[in-house]
Amino acid sequence: MALIVQKFGGSSVADAESIKRVAKRIVDTRRAGNDVVVAVSAMGDTTDDLLDLAGAVAPTPAPRELDMLLSSGERISMALLAMAIHGMGYEARSFTGSQAGMITTAEHGQARILDVTPVRLREALDEGAIVIVAGFQGFNRDTRDITTLGRGGSDTTAVALAAALGADVCEIYSDVDGIFTCDPRVVPLAKKLDTIDADEMLELAANGAKVLYIRAVEYARRHNVLIHARSTFTSNEGTYVLGKGMTAPNQSKGEEMSDVIGKEEPVVAGVAIDRSQAKITLVGVPDVPGSASAIFTRVAKAGANIDMIVQNVQSASRGRTDISFTLPKEQGAAVAKQLQAEQEDLGYEQVVFDDQIGKLSVVGAGMRSHSGVSLTLFEALSSNGINVEMISTSEIRISVVLRDTDLDNAARAVHTAYGLDSDIEATVYAGTGR
Amino acid sequence: MALIVQKFGGSSVADAESIKRVAKRIVDTRRAGNDVVVAVSAMGDTTDDLLDLAGAVAPTPAPRELDMLLSSGERISMALLAMAIHGMGYEARSFTGSQAGMITTAEHGQARILDVTPVRLREALDEGAIVIVAGFQGFNRDTRDITTLGRGGSDTTAVALAAALGADVCEIYSDVDGIFTCDPRVVPLAKKLDTIDADEMLELAANGAKVLYIRAVEYARRHNVLIHARSTFTSNEGTYVLGKGMTAPNQSKGEEMSDVIGKEEPVVAGVAIDRSQAKITLVGVPDVPGSASAIFTRVAKAGANIDMIVQNVQSASRGRTDISFTLPKEQGAAVAKQLQAEQEDLGYEQVVFDDQIGKLSVVGAGMRSHSGVSLTLFEALSSNGINVEMISTSEIRISVVLRDTDLDNAARAVHTAYGLDSDIEATVYAGTGR
Repeated sequence: MALIVQKFGGSSVADAESIKRVAKRIVDTRRAGNDVVVAVSAMGDTTDDLLDLAGAVAPTPAPRELDMLLSSGERISMALLAMAIHGMGYEARSFTGSQAGMITTAEHGQARILDVTPVRLREALDEGAIVIVAGFQGFNRDTRDITTLGRGGSDTTAVALAAALGADVCEIYSDVDGIFTCDPRVVPLAKKLDTIDADEMLELAANGAKVLYIRAVEYARRHNVLIHARSTFTSNEGTYVLGKGMTAPNQSKGEEMSDVIGKEEPVVAGVAIDRSQAKITLVGVPDVPGSASAIFTRVAKAGANIDMIVQNVQSASRGRTDISFTLPKEQGAAVAKQLQAEQEDLGYEQVVFDDQIGKLSVVGAGMRSHSGVSLTLFEALSSNGINVEMISTSEIRISVVLRDTDLDNAARAVHTAYGLDSDIEATVYAGTGR
Repeated sequence: MALIVQKFGGSSVADAESIKRVAKRIVDTRRAGNDVVVAVSAMGDTTDDLLDLAGAVAPTPAPRELDMLLSSGERISMALLAMAIHGMGYEARSFTGSQAGMITTAEHGQARILDVTPVRLREALDEGAIVIVAGFQGFNRDTRDITTLGRGGSDTTAVALAAALGADVCEIYSDVDGIFTCDPRVVPLAKKLDTIDADEMLELAANGAKVLYIRAVEYARRHNVLIHARSTFTSNEGTYVLGKGMTAPNQSKGEEMSDVIGKEEPVVAGVAIDRSQAKITLVGVPDVPGSASAIFTRVAKAGANIDMIVQNVQSASRGRTDISFTLPKEQGAAVAKQLQAEQEDLGYEQVVFDDQIGKLSVVGAGMRSHSGVSLTLFEALSSNGINVEMISTSEIRISVVLRDTDLDNAARAVHTAYGLDSDIEATVYAGTGR
């Protein structure tokens, strides 16, 4: 008898009908002889609606009260889900974050899980009940206040429950079939992966892939939780995210082994694209020690999350250089303003803000052992007349910044170049994957 | 520095604007130098909407889950209210029923308060914060589950908080100015009472008056809490509900004393009307010992709340009698059916169900010391050609059952007869008073 944790997002429980469909799916898993623990998000747009209400009563809502407000969303969905399961003749009990023992830090709106003490969940499981837990929320022991985990919190809740309960697998349901070699809405020939290394998944998620939240994948890797990303709408196997030494249940025997353990082939697991970044270039920065640090101290003060940095050299002859860096679009204006204000101190000649860029990343654990992987990338781009503006690499990733108008063509070209194309077009769902 | 508990119902916090208006009212009370604790209901129709959702996912929702679901309603309103107060520059903290120490029995949907341990509320007050508490909800210590108090629960929450914190007054806000000598929508010349005895209030509430819930008034009387029923929309004094030996703050001196202490005059405090009752008559019941008890055992089995009982005698000559009793309309059909099924055992000739009745009650503590009070009632009714079908009395109340079509005329006639008419017409608000 296995213990399975299942996570259903807001779009999977948007209305009474969807809730009943999800309930049936949970009951089927139970019928198959498994213990089931479910983490559920708030229904559809509940969270946004609550945020609108908050904005309507106060310009900047108090964080503690905002968490109290938002945490009501999952109470509604989880209670309804438990009722629906009852209606199908199975025992189900819902638990809030605090009842489930989700102990977090006190940072409202972005609390991090410190410990999980699922005493009541164990009791309920031992009594044969299906357990429903409110995703996204927890509580802090010192303040005794309710907290929320921030974006993607329900995925993290599910993985944390799976770790604390020693679940056999953590199934994360969404409206896509799993992890694809690239976004099928951009690359129609993208393939669904049966498995992917956690390291690769992290790089993909960090560089634009939307199916799983990076925090949840990190938590899973740290605590050896097997994630199975799959679709709410089909019973097809999705994608297993494998940590060190893990094997996917459906493949832990026979022929496909090689494709799982070590992942010798293919070298590249997937291509991620990201339109969320903008670029700031400081032109004519004095080419003397300390100017870069001076600049990035200011940028850090403005609270920006910098991704890539490039220092050009073409104008070094006149003792000046250009420094470019990328950051989330929404932070761009503020940072540019900050730098403008300090132009005299920093001594640069001009600041250029550019939000018409796109980032393409090629990810593959095989890069560790293969050379010349980047060559394929640059050949594919140049042969399609696509200009590269910035480059950065990690042990298992190569990222390039391009004009945003080039991004889709680049993705398709690179996907083909690395031999990732499927023979058939992938089915694309309306949803976002969340 | 006084401690004031304020209760605001769903209609007072129906949207962002009303929440801000209520927040301002709370802040004004704080500015006046008082400690403030607020019990708030769910916004507008939230509870009904949640009930609809529950009905949509399961025919008969599990009670535990239903309480989990419904309790989210007050979380939303209390958090928004706290935010709105913050927005006005005052510290406010919201607390769920369990955080507030509302310990109840385990009967979901109709839990009763066992104890209140407002440790966290005290802390918050000591730190100068305005305290907002979710009405209607609590938790059970044994099951560690969330419970709800049932109809009028937020009033009870407010009174229980006032008792536990030793508040100076418990202000219950609604959309009417206070307690009237009769429903102004029926009797335009009804007067707002400055004060009313708790005993009288209980009789009025039990017999159709809607402004206060009987459970809250009972709790207040038992724990010596001074209730001030007043309007959300004006700053006028409302009606003080006085327990033994209590005096209203605004009247505890000088001229009006006599009107407060002992309430020598007037003999009658008010007239209550009730359209919620129906009448069942069993015709030709064997006039032998035990038939009544046999009948009411069956009625009790059907779970009916019987109000009045009358046994006629006109047909006793033939060894048979008629027995009539009143009960809530919605219970009528089921009980009549139950009795029909047992006609042979009970040996009566015929059962008659009548839901076209209305009940009028005259309430006054003065009845204890005055005789002939009922005479005025019957004269007023007969001189208006209104027929009385049933009569019941308590120490401070006389109730009569009439045709429902006679009820309004009867109320006006009786109100006049007891000299309760005001010289000016009362302002009537759209709302129900809840």
